[in-house]
Amino acid sequence: MDITTIVGIVAGLVVIVISILIDGDIGSFINAPGVMIVFGGILSATLVKFPMKEMISSMKIGFEVAIQNSKNDPQYIYEKALEMSGLVRKGGLLALENVKIDNELFQRGIGMCTDGHNLEVIRATIDREVLMSIQQQEMGETLWRGIGDMAPAWGMIGTLVGLVQMLANLDDPAAIGPAMAIAMLTTFYGAVIANLVAIPLADKLGIKTEYDRMTHELIVESILQIQQNQSPAAMGEILSAYLPTASKGGGASKDDEA
Amino acid sequence: MDITTIVGIVAGLVVIVISILIDGDIGSFINAPGVMIVFGGILSATLVKFPMKEMISSMKIGFEVAIQNSKNDPQYIYEKALEMSGLVRKGGLLALENVKIDNELFQRGIGMCTDGHNLEVIRATIDREVLMSIQQQEMGETLWRGIGDMAPAWGMIGTLVGLVQMLANLDDPAAIGPAMAIAMLTTFYGAVIANLVAIPLADKLGIKTEYDRMTHELIVESILQIQQNQSPAAMGEILSAYLPTASKGGGASKDDEA
Amino acid sequence: MDITTIVGIVAGLVVIVISILIDGDIGSFINAPGVMIVFGGILSATLVKFPMKEMISSMKIGFEVAIQNSKNDPQYIYEKALEMSGLVRKGGLLALENVKIDNELFQRGIGMCTDGHNLEVIRATIDREVLMSIQQQEMGETLWRGIGDMAPAWGMIGTLVGLVQMLANLDDPAAIGPAMAIAMLTTFYGAVIANLVAIPLADKLGIKTEYDRMTHELIVESILQIQQNQSPAAMGEILSAYLPTASKGGGASKDDEA
Amino acid sequence: MDITTIVGIVAGLVVIVISILIDGDIGSFINAPGVMIVFGGILSATLVKFPMKEMISSMKIGFEVAIQNSKNDPQYIYEKALEMSGLVRKGGLLALENVKIDNELFQRGIGMCTDGHNLEVIRATIDREVLMSIQQQEMGETLWRGIGDMAPAWGMIGTLVGLVQMLANLDDPAAIGPAMAIAMLTTFYGAVIANLVAIPLADKLGIKTEYDRMTHELIVESILQIQQNQSPAAMGEILSAYLPTASKGGGASKDDEA
Amino acid sequence: MDITTIVGIVAGLVVIVISILIDGDIGSFINAPGVMIVFGGILSATLVKFPMKEMISSMKIGFEVAIQNSKNDPQYIYEKALEMSGLVRKGGLLALENVKIDNELFQRGIGMCTDGHNLEVIRATIDREVLMSIQQQEMGETLWRGIGDMAPAWGMIGTLVGLVQMLANLDDPAAIGPAMAIAMLTTFYGAVIANLVAIPLADKLGIKTEYDRMTHELIVESILQIQQNQSPAAMGEILSAYLPTASKGGGASKDDEA
Repeated sequence: MDITTIVGIVAGLVVIVISILIDGDIGSFINAPGVMIVFGGILSATLVKFPMKEMISSMKIGFEVAIQNSKNDPQYIYEKALEMSGLVRKGGLLALENVKIDNELFQRGIGMCTDGHNLEVIRATIDREVLMSIQQQEMGETLWRGIGDMAPAWGMIGTLVGLVQMLANLDDPAAIGPAMAIAMLTTFYGAVIANLVAIPLADKLGIKTEYDRMTHELIVESILQIQQNQSPAAMGEILSAYLPTASKGGGASKDDEA
Repeated sequence: MDITTIVGIVAGLVVIVISILIDGDIGSFINAPGVMIVFGGILSATLVKFPMKEMISSMKIGFEVAIQNSKNDPQYIYEKALEMSGLVRKGGLLALENVKIDNELFQRGIGMCTDGHNLEVIRATIDREVLMSIQQQEMGETLWRGIGDMAPAWGMIGTLVGLVQMLANLDDPAAIGPAMAIAMLTTFYGAVIANLVAIPLADKLGIKTEYDRMTHELIVESILQIQQNQSPAAMGEILSAYLPTASKGGGASKDDEA
Repeated sequence: MDITTIVGIVAGLVVIVISILIDGDIGSFINAPGVMIVFGGILSATLVKFPMKEMISSMKIGFEVAIQNSKNDPQYIYEKALEMSGLVRKGGLLALENVKIDNELFQRGIGMCTDGHNLEVIRATIDREVLMSIQQQEMGETLWRGIGDMAPAWGMIGTLVGLVQMLANLDDPAAIGPAMAIAMLTTFYGAVIANLVAIPLADKLGIKTEYDRMTHELIVESILQIQQNQSPAAMGEILSAYLPTASKGGGASKDDEA
Repeated sequence: MDITTIVGIVAGLVVIVISILIDGDIGSFINAPGVMIVFGGILSATLVKFPMKEMISSMKIGFEVAIQNSKNDPQYIYEKALEMSGLVRKGGLLALENVKIDNELFQRGIGMCTDGHNLEVIRATIDREVLMSIQQQEMGETLWRGIGDMAPAWGMIGTLVGLVQMLANLDDPAAIGPAMAIAMLTTFYGAVIANLVAIPLADKLGIKTEYDRMTHELIVESILQIQQNQSPAAMGEILSAYLPTASKGGGASKDDEA
Repeated sequence: MDITTIVGIVAGLVVIVISILIDGDIGSFINAPGVMIVFGGILSATLVKFPMKEMISSMKIGFEVAIQNSKNDPQYIYEKALEMSGLVRKGGLLALENVKIDNELFQRGIGMCTDGHNLEVIRATIDREVLMSIQQQEMGETLWRGIGDMAPAWGMIGTLVGLVQMLANLDDPAAIGPAMAIAMLTTFYGAVIANLVAIPLADKLGIKTEYDRMTHELIVESILQIQQNQSPAAMGEILSAYLPTASKGGGASKDDEA
């Protein structure tokens, strides 16, 4: 799921660089004071907006989302749940003791299940874990959305600084063009940060949060069904409602025989 | 319903091309690097926003909506339901066994009905099918809406690249005009993509989703009424509430005699 | 209620024309290709957005709202209801048989009432009728709101076409001014369409829909009270809550004696 | 509460005039056609949006809010209610017959109370009165908010008219500056109308409506408590929840002894 | 939590000043009439929007939030509650009489608890106190958000004043540049006020309000659990749900043994 994030950002930068190189050189697009005012301004305003601690953890969440794959694959959980349901039918809940699940949360829930905890306790534990990671992702979304809102504004502030300086010193007409080119660079930086990085990243964090919320429901429902010794067939029908659209094809066509 | 989509987009392009040809030639409106930065930028940002799988399926949904007619005609379902209601009154539910319905979902629901499934199972099956197609359309709407939001921004990024290059090389005054013309082309591309294609397409997907949701309710209600052996007259009155405005004229005027 | 719509649009056009004539002639504000791209573009995008059938009926609704007066005058219905309440007290429901009501919906409801239909059936019939006209008005509002959103964008597209053409042919400095004037005309057209016609019309359709919804409630409540043989005094108090602010003065001051 | 409205608008105008006078004369900021197109355009579009009757009454409401003080002082009502509660404890409800209350609504409610009306009737009467004035204020807010939305657009339309005329007649270079100055005046007018008058006035109407809604609840609760012969101490505690923040200091510190 | 506010604003100003000094001097960025029109305009419009009293108290809240640390540390309350729970288990509620709590609200609630008040009274008192401070913070957020909305608009009004004056007096071409530089300064001021101070401050007030609402719930829940003589272990589990994400690590890992 998440390789696209990096591919997208890199592809966007490549597209911009190529379109620059066609008609000129990359050098006229790099300007240290411009970079400083846009990045410095965004960082300063973010410091005013968020408490320091949350800023750092949200930055981290943003990077993790960008690089790592989601730990939650609903299709995997769906299939594992059906498999375990079969085991429980044959050997009771204890048959699950040695099952290895490639999902920490699900593993832990099943572990509590075989330890004889009741569903309320298991649900509360899973809820708390999931809520924690969802809250962090929502904070990450808010932070990146905020950067996406501020980047164009700080780009404009940088351009205004450049324009005022250029206009105040109109002595040398030959200098007007390059000075204005530099002034416009900050607007360019702000637009790229907002539209290639910050807003798309915030959107992806939002989609991923929704996705994790669905998977969470799927895990809790799976454990409930396993505890109640549900048949794999009935379970497949119930759980398939929690699968996202793309992976639902197989489950849905089975309904005809239901 | 959907021919208008293509007619609209083609008509819009024709209008733009004609208004260009009146005062000049189309050549000055085609610029390969400009096309690259706008399309490349939108595509890159969309890759960051959405998981790859969902991007492709949403693109497909967008094209299908553009070309195909809706599979759901509420007026047809309404009339078919009244017809079947008459058949059931005469020959019982079994009279429906050989009825051909030109709507896959309705056919399947009636099939399950004659097979003796109860309404809960039928509703669950139809709900799942419809939810699936509605989720896909909503994702398609979100994707096109996102493109509509990003297109003007990427048009502006392209224009900024062009302006910075032009301003940095002001040596030849004769080149300023054409360079600025090219710089503005990306803003033009972005505006056309957003206002002729992406936003209108997203709006139509939204209207169609609402429409399919209504039809879905109509199908479920029809099956319920048929199962309960409802009289065609009473059924017509109940079902007509699910018809969209335009096709309602006839149904409403019948109410006086009710 | 609706003469103001036409008066407003005409007044706005007069104001614009006068302010043009003070400093120049109207001729420089008329440009056929500009009109074509703005109107053609809006029409094309609207075709993509809405199904053809709904577009035409919504256009019609928009014009009707602009020219006709509302068929629903709550004050008239309020007074008529009190009058009929008195008749019913004296001569029973049958006394209403020859009453002429200048509101089709109310007349029909009272007719069903004297025919002995129960309130559920009457309410369902009125609800359906009203829902139909309200749905059409809401679609009309959506359509005009959409035009209000797109008009400035298509004005800008036209201006971009003009600017690119002007900039690509900077040979004759004397032609720059007039060419830019023409380029800006489409932005002007778009702004006038949006701010004088489309957005205000959408707003008025919204207000009128709210108004009709209130009147609908008033009619249903009136019929309910008449059927229950309510006294005119108590009825006046109950119904006055459904009157809009402006016409409420008289009803409210009566409450002291209540 | 409301002197600030006039003070604010006057202060804003003074600030603008002074900043104009520092570098030039006020004459170049007055332009009759510009005033006409901005005010005429806003008025025309408002005519399309709102029915005439509502426009005039909403204008009036706007002026009243600007000049008059609120008739509702929650602190006064709170204190008066406690005072009356003491009187009722000593002399029964009849002891309130000669109490003078400096709030029409409260006076009337207490009057109905001593006349022996039950709370439902009193609440209905007060509700209707308050709803009426709140509806008018909400309409006033909508009208001023609409003006705030349209003013910048009509300012831009005026500027476009001026620019097109200027560009179409570029013969005399010396005239460009003044012509463009005049063209920009309408944008200036629109910005001042929106940001000094219309939007702030709409915001204040919104705050005042919220405030009156709270006071209304306070009056109804006060009458309920007085009718139930509640002790002043308990009543003070219950009613203090309806006081706005600023006047709550005293009431809150008393809670310790409660 | 709140040192970041000042650090952020100072850092933002430093970044702007440095980027100005790299290419010129700070003098050309200071303009008294420009400062006057932007600050005067914002202040005037704010006076129209808000009642005077609320303006001053909201300003104060804004400064307090900027300088002071939050009085509510959920982690501290959580630990203190567990500690007190242990004391109550050993010595009953009276053991809490001499406990010193570094949180006024919690101290007062525990005081009322040992005084034998029931939970309803304690909750009402705390609710009222918290509601008061939350209402003030919300008003502060609204005020700063409003300033953030108006600052760019007033910056533009100032720029329009400057541009009109410059354009009306184009006699001296050498003066155009500096005059336009000065005109653009107000736009610059407005952008900095909005994006470095007002909007980020409003956002932080919003986050802090949410935070205080959570802490409030934690305090009320803690007192409830202490009154019910809950065991520290069970209490830790219940209360940990009220802790914000960052401080939750320890509490969550304990759940495994639960």
